[in-house]
Amino acid sequence: MDYIELSEKVFNNEKRFVSRAITVIESGNSDSARLLSELHKKTGKAYRIGITGPPGAGKSTLTNQMTKLYRKENLKVGIIAVDPTSPFTGGALLGDRVRMSEIGSDEGVFIRSMATRGSLGGLSKKTIDAADVLDAAGYDIIIFETVGVGQSELDIAKTADTTVVVLVPESGDSIQAMKAGLMEIGDLFVVNKSDRPGAENAITSINTMLMMKDHTADSWLPEVIKAIASDNTGINEIIEMIDKHREHLKKNNLLLKKREDNSKSRIKEIVHDIITSEIWSKKRETDLDDSISEVVLGRISPYNLADNIISNFKNNL
Amino acid sequence: MDYIELSEKVFNNEKRFVSRAITVIESGNSDSARLLSELHKKTGKAYRIGITGPPGAGKSTLTNQMTKLYRKENLKVGIIAVDPTSPFTGGALLGDRVRMSEIGSDEGVFIRSMATRGSLGGLSKKTIDAADVLDAAGYDIIIFETVGVGQSELDIAKTADTTVVVLVPESGDSIQAMKAGLMEIGDLFVVNKSDRPGAENAITSINTMLMMKDHTADSWLPEVIKAIASDNTGINEIIEMIDKHREHLKKNNLLLKKREDNSKSRIKEIVHDIITSEIWSKKRETDLDDSISEVVLGRISPYNLADNIISNFKNNL
Repeated sequence: MDYIELSEKVFNNEKRFVSRAITVIESGNSDSARLLSELHKKTGKAYRIGITGPPGAGKSTLTNQMTKLYRKENLKVGIIAVDPTSPFTGGALLGDRVRMSEIGSDEGVFIRSMATRGSLGGLSKKTIDAADVLDAAGYDIIIFETVGVGQSELDIAKTADTTVVVLVPESGDSIQAMKAGLMEIGDLFVVNKSDRPGAENAITSINTMLMMKDHTADSWLPEVIKAIASDNTGINEIIEMIDKHREHLKKNNLLLKKREDNSKSRIKEIVHDIITSEIWSKKRETDLDDSISEVVLGRISPYNLADNIISNFKNNL
Repeated sequence: MDYIELSEKVFNNEKRFVSRAITVIESGNSDSARLLSELHKKTGKAYRIGITGPPGAGKSTLTNQMTKLYRKENLKVGIIAVDPTSPFTGGALLGDRVRMSEIGSDEGVFIRSMATRGSLGGLSKKTIDAADVLDAAGYDIIIFETVGVGQSELDIAKTADTTVVVLVPESGDSIQAMKAGLMEIGDLFVVNKSDRPGAENAITSINTMLMMKDHTADSWLPEVIKAIASDNTGINEIIEMIDKHREHLKKNNLLLKKREDNSKSRIKEIVHDIITSEIWSKKRETDLDDSISEVVLGRISPYNLADNIISNFKNNL
């Protein structure tokens, strides 16, 4: 099946082929760019929500409950879960994936988990590409579920139209120290499992950090919502707040601006990937390996060697 | 003063000019590459130690005490402190810098703090370049002090020959969840402020995580050392363990290997920086701005636009 046929099947939301399209993208082979160019024509309609936070905060449960509510409004939901398979721990939170099965059998829901192992550099790009597939397949809402630890994960969360940061009462103490990255990207904060002790403290420390953020009269002020995702408490409020944020973005012409900025970063990343793979041919990699001991011994500088490599690239175009 | 003269003064360890050389590098202007190429000839002798960990772990105090011990052995010490000026908090841990002043007046010590604000992308490159300046100036030991939160900071720590991860007893609970990145890069773990409750627990959880790491018969097994940097407890043990790690690297021919790998990444980053600045001329940036709304509206795909940009770049060489 060529990429044109595959695109047609994605446009018709034939799930098997939606899945296959994402696999093509994950493989990163030469069809991937052509397929994405074709699919891109029908993108731009889906609303993208990032859900991020530390492991164990209940992101999957929240995603699950939010999806059920969106389904009641007859909106189609695509979920992209980015697994935290650190090369160190080697483990994925499989339990979370299992819990998702409740909504997995719904025709209007598509769930895809993206592998992170060994491809961290390209992860955010591939995840955003996968979202384009779901957008082209007609999903109204796309949820990215990521663990807010690495830069890649934060990058993914940032490309969402609305980013929801999920914390638990126990996060309170470490928020200040560890979570500056998360605090910066949240449009909405959820203190989940808020029946546990410390919920009010956590809310206070989040609010304190948010107050320190620069804002102007028309900036969005992130709100903090208490929830207990497991028994469906607070989910309505979260959905309403996402809608409110979406309205805010539209009213201030920020949605288009945000998407343009994201597209620019994405194009720069694509340009970078293409040019990097052209420069680092097998031959030039070998040449680098052969000269590297000279660099370490101080006989040639990294800067001179870099210049040589670029000249060689240009002369061989 | 041209870069040749400046290099001579760096080789003579004239501190004012060592400082100026680092400023040239931070500015990233066109002299920077020429200067570094010249300085590079006299590099490779310094031993590089990374000290990283969460804010408040006592990294500066530890650096301070280690420096005093190295000075007793008559080794010259250069310190590069990477300030955690998150764009969110806007603050630097100035107090830590002040505490450093104890060693700051010593002729054989050079302290430089690198600004992180707004330059996160290039930070690790500039820090490594700055270390080359100190290496060329004849410092025997170079200590990078970084806050182990962002990818950039981890990148810096990784380029050290020996990386020391500093934690406190309270870190215990969050190590598993938050610190996978830190656990991966540590050659040596210090539980500082170990007179506080929870020190033994912290050591146990670090050891548990370390046991999960793959290792072969001749791999280095990171050790965990208790310390109270403020009253000089455990500093000797840390220095001894660093020496032991250094011996391990040398004996197994890993020091050269590690430095070669670091040089390769560095050269690739330099190549990337040069080619990126050539591609993204003012003109092409403007062209991208002008076409970006077409991309968001689905009329041209990011991949096609990226191809056009690359063709344009090649045709205009």
